Amino acid sequence: MSVPYGQTALPQRVSIREVGPRDGLQNESVILTTANKLRLIDALAATGLAQIEVGAFVKAENVPQMADTTEVFASLTRQPGVKYSAIAPNVLGARRALEAGADMVQVFFSASESHNQSNVNMSVEQSLANVADMSAIVRAANRPFDAVLSVAFGCPFEGHTPIERVLELCGRLLDLGAEEVTLGDTTGMAHPSLVQQVVQAFQVRFPRQALRLHLHSARGAGLANILAALQLGVSEFDSSIGGIGGCPFAPGAPGNLCTEDMTHMLHEMGIHTGLDLPALMATARMLEQMLGHEVPSQTIKAGICKHLTG
Amino acid sequence: MSVPYGQTALPQRVSIREVGPRDGLQNESVILTTANKLRLIDALAATGLAQIEVGAFVKAENVPQMADTTEVFASLTRQPGVKYSAIAPNVLGARRALEAGADMVQVFFSASESHNQSNVNMSVEQSLANVADMSAIVRAANRPFDAVLSVAFGCPFEGHTPIERVLELCGRLLDLGAEEVTLGDTTGMAHPSLVQQVVQAFQVRFPRQALRLHLHSARGAGLANILAALQLGVSEFDSSIGGIGGCPFAPGAPGNLCTEDMTHMLHEMGIHTGLDLPALMATARMLEQMLGHEVPSQTIKAGICKHLTG
Repeated sequence: MSVPYGQTALPQRVSIREVGPRDGLQNESVILTTANKLRLIDALAATGLAQIEVGAFVKAENVPQMADTTEVFASLTRQPGVKYSAIAPNVLGARRALEAGADMVQVFFSASESHNQSNVNMSVEQSLANVADMSAIVRAANRPFDAVLSVAFGCPFEGHTPIERVLELCGRLLDLGAEEVTLGDTTGMAHPSLVQQVVQAFQVRFPRQALRLHLHSARGAGLANILAALQLGVSEFDSSIGGIGGCPFAPGAPGNLCTEDMTHMLHEMGIHTGLDLPALMATARMLEQMLGHEVPSQTIKAGICKHLTG
Repeated sequence: MSVPYGQTALPQRVSIREVGPRDGLQNESVILTTANKLRLIDALAATGLAQIEVGAFVKAENVPQMADTTEVFASLTRQPGVKYSAIAPNVLGARRALEAGADMVQVFFSASESHNQSNVNMSVEQSLANVADMSAIVRAANRPFDAVLSVAFGCPFEGHTPIERVLELCGRLLDLGAEEVTLGDTTGMAHPSLVQQVVQAFQVRFPRQALRLHLHSARGAGLANILAALQLGVSEFDSSIGGIGGCPFAPGAPGNLCTEDMTHMLHEMGIHTGLDLPALMATARMLEQMLGHEVPSQTIKAGICKHLTG
């Protein structure tokens, strides 16, 4: 099933994982109350999202924004059909995520040694051993685990990330039982040609494996990268309500792709997301009130295009 | 000559017309001094741009930001190889542009009746008669005229702009001797599929005629629209330094594509622009100082990607 794009075709349906409550809020200096987080997540769940990254089971002293993730899981108003996922950095975090009731546990590490050391203070091999232990625990609980490979399109320390390295690490993650692999453009270094190269190489190596992309928009090219991926049939993407979650390496720079901007473009192109765009925009405006500042979203400033409203 | 994009190819070289000094500044509430405009234009000319929209010969009471266009032309430090163009709305404006020394005169009107009435208080037929008179004057002076067709990808009042209507008006402009036709996405209603449809239709109807696009980024899709056009071989685009020039219909919404964001993406993809990206970024920062506020540019916040800096 596809929609036309010039003489070619794009996927008819795209599935979005909303990462705002975790990846977005984690990068905000304002810490939301648990009650406000619940209002945000419940509002997001009502927009039709298939998956929401609720929080992270990390040390509260390291990431105070995520300290209440257990309470948030305990008080969610669960919508049927929505997967509520959590990030965990290690076996302890994975156990806490399972106990809290996460539908899916996400593990993450970096494709480059220097970024992995900087981010989690481990070598990539140590991270893989860690993933193996976590996988055993999560799968024993009959829940899926999902792996995010960071800096897959470039590393702020090392520059280019070799595609062969990305493929090798994806292979090891799949061997460890990852349900899904997500390639992360952690600091916004992807561009459309690189997206095409990496995705094509992945599809050749793993022809039956779906791929999710977590793209950023550090220099305005976020939706161009989405278009490049759609042209190769990729239909699973991460994004963040309001576009919150800047790049920690570049203060003030846009980071995560904005959920409502991506949804607006996809709907204009006739691609289904299952999402209620006005409800997403209302949620982004509510988030602005909670944070006390504007969010990067362009669609809430420009409004929905007349094409879509009728 | 082309660069690879997946299994296909894109143009190897893109030519950018910088519209910041006219289309950008016209939408700013701060009016730059003539001296600052000259500093801006001279800095832009030193970045390698092939064409710069310097100003407009319109009534000063209607557009006070453009009141000094004659003085600006008189004091430019002309760089060899740079075309300094001006907008003119009528015969009087065209005469003033020629006298001031504009290398090229741009005429503009809208593809929809309601937008044209709202913008220039004429019917489209009246505008075409006006263009015919202007064309005669400009061509008699041996200078090229260039036509911008506004709301070619959708009208804020009428919604969809029929492609057949766009083609018909392009045909009439070419018959009137337009050197080049520019299709404007005046209020940011284009999306990649629509760009492909309109460009393909133009190329079928006018197979030997180059096409320039003036795209906006009202909802984040500006560079995705550029990618869609590149895939059909379009290689001439308008953009604005710093991304200045919001959409007057949506206060606060991003308007013009940002020259340095587009240049960054094109350079990453191996497409030549002839532009000095660090010099563009320095110019955008200087413009922020002149205007006294941040500009929408994402690249000046995120910095140049390590891929490009080496």
